[in-house]
Amino acid sequence: MKNMQVLLAARPSGRVEESHFRIVESDTPRAGEGEFVVRAHYLSLDPYMRGRMDDSRSYAAKAAVGEVMVGTAVGEVIESRHDKYRAGDFVETRTGWQLYGTSNGGGVRKIDPGYVPLSAYLGAVGMPGVTAWIGLNEHGRPKAGETVVVSAAGGAVGSAVGQLAKLQGCRAVGIAGGRAKCDYVANELGFDACIDYKAGNLDADLAAACPKGIDVYFDNVGGPVLDAVLLHMNAFSRIALCGQISGYSDPDALTVRNFRCFLINRIQLRGFICSDHLDLWKGALKELGTLVHEGRLKYRESIAIGLENAPRAFIGLLNGQNFGKQLVKLI
Amino acid sequence: MKNMQVLLAARPSGRVEESHFRIVESDTPRAGEGEFVVRAHYLSLDPYMRGRMDDSRSYAAKAAVGEVMVGTAVGEVIESRHDKYRAGDFVETRTGWQLYGTSNGGGVRKIDPGYVPLSAYLGAVGMPGVTAWIGLNEHGRPKAGETVVVSAAGGAVGSAVGQLAKLQGCRAVGIAGGRAKCDYVANELGFDACIDYKAGNLDADLAAACPKGIDVYFDNVGGPVLDAVLLHMNAFSRIALCGQISGYSDPDALTVRNFRCFLINRIQLRGFICSDHLDLWKGALKELGTLVHEGRLKYRESIAIGLENAPRAFIGLLNGQNFGKQLVKLI
Repeated sequence: MKNMQVLLAARPSGRVEESHFRIVESDTPRAGEGEFVVRAHYLSLDPYMRGRMDDSRSYAAKAAVGEVMVGTAVGEVIESRHDKYRAGDFVETRTGWQLYGTSNGGGVRKIDPGYVPLSAYLGAVGMPGVTAWIGLNEHGRPKAGETVVVSAAGGAVGSAVGQLAKLQGCRAVGIAGGRAKCDYVANELGFDACIDYKAGNLDADLAAACPKGIDVYFDNVGGPVLDAVLLHMNAFSRIALCGQISGYSDPDALTVRNFRCFLINRIQLRGFICSDHLDLWKGALKELGTLVHEGRLKYRESIAIGLENAPRAFIGLLNGQNFGKQLVKLI
Repeated sequence: MKNMQVLLAARPSGRVEESHFRIVESDTPRAGEGEFVVRAHYLSLDPYMRGRMDDSRSYAAKAAVGEVMVGTAVGEVIESRHDKYRAGDFVETRTGWQLYGTSNGGGVRKIDPGYVPLSAYLGAVGMPGVTAWIGLNEHGRPKAGETVVVSAAGGAVGSAVGQLAKLQGCRAVGIAGGRAKCDYVANELGFDACIDYKAGNLDADLAAACPKGIDVYFDNVGGPVLDAVLLHMNAFSRIALCGQISGYSDPDALTVRNFRCFLINRIQLRGFICSDHLDLWKGALKELGTLVHEGRLKYRESIAIGLENAPRAFIGLLNGQNFGKQLVKLI
């Protein structure tokens, strides 16, 4: 039983390449006093990890070169010297990109794979779902009948945003890249419409899909899509700024030209990350768990097989090649 | 007794020129049933008027070509057929750029030139003062000890913002154009510092003036100044977006390149105009009146003499040539 780890080998300047990672083998860790060992079943890949790879100031501590890449996994406790966790318990932990990791229990969540599937705790009933819930309810504050637009609508966060908005009686419009994702968002997830930004008619398509303008925009991408959306925002509308994936490789791509719209329409914008609102997690997770358990909140997963494929899957995620929540299956 | 009026002669595309206005003489109006006639003493010139000159969508109804320019004045009732106003009353009315105007009482405020000077009801105890109050308190929400930065700090709104912030125990830092304005803001108004953006060291000057970063930014100008400020905003800071005077002649000048800061530092931005918050006016005006009456809120005025000079004074205002509240004295 050897451990396998993915280390950050070098900081990218611009695009991430597989050469920025290094895969190493090591001994499987043992639990120290007050610790337990987790065997990871699924590793979560998330856009925020790109920011951790940079040296610049960000909202999160950066990853260290030569260390295991940061990340969250779900798995099973296989050895414990911690009085609250036993072998056989299933947990969500921040053990990073590796097969086995230790924890002292900090930030760990016990999970029940009999209630919803194990992997869902990394998606709709985990950080992405809570991010959708907080951005929509805390910052978007939609009222029934309003129009909610979300970018990266086929992703783990975006797909939840639109479905939660629909459950609140809103018109939900997605923006995604490519026909297949848009068909999925509109037909399987039940959004009222989904716009393919790659089709090149974003402005006209927004006008057609949002005949009463846009009241809430949940932004995961930034850049030209945000610029296009701004021209359709209603007076006193709200923007929940959750991600800027279009600018991870080129910050200049995040330039906003239609900034005047913020004053003309008295738009409120709030950048946020889900850990700003720890007080909201418990209630959000309970609601999200119930919705998934009852089949009222759907999700889709892109699953890479084997830790050695995590770097390539992560690069694909940054390029929008995933379809739903990106995971790496480790067992 | 002839009336004189300034009409909007043509809509500018870009810079405003005197040729966009036309001055005409007409008969002095008479009061119809339920109306009164005001002889204006001071006309207020305000940046928002530039937006009214355009044909494009804005937060306010546009001015009509061939009609009297919109605007607010303070003056004396000289004839009345309205049961609530008598000759000799002083009022603030929206009679526009003319010497005499009629009113049916809608939107009129009775004022007392014995409490604070007549012209102050167009500035610190009028719309600009209320704008400062609302943007700071409703959207900026500073706490004692926080750093508040305001652009156009020598202007009618900006000068009130910084003084109100100081009264709440904040560090107040202004941004203004030119040494004379900065000296006035720092030395006479009591801001902790004032940065001359024309000196060309905005980034370094902001770092020096805001050693603990910026918690609240009250923006009157937009454009490159906003871009520079964004790099110094603290986590969970707030931006009250009140004006974008740098973009009135060239909307491209409002492009924001450092938009990524909104997510990195979870900044809240809110565009607003003072008429969005009519419920707050009464309390704000009472507080502002008391502060001016007691000499605790200072202001300065740039006064053009004669209505025929209103177009030139307005163009000067758009170019930052005013120093404090821009007025036109009519009597």
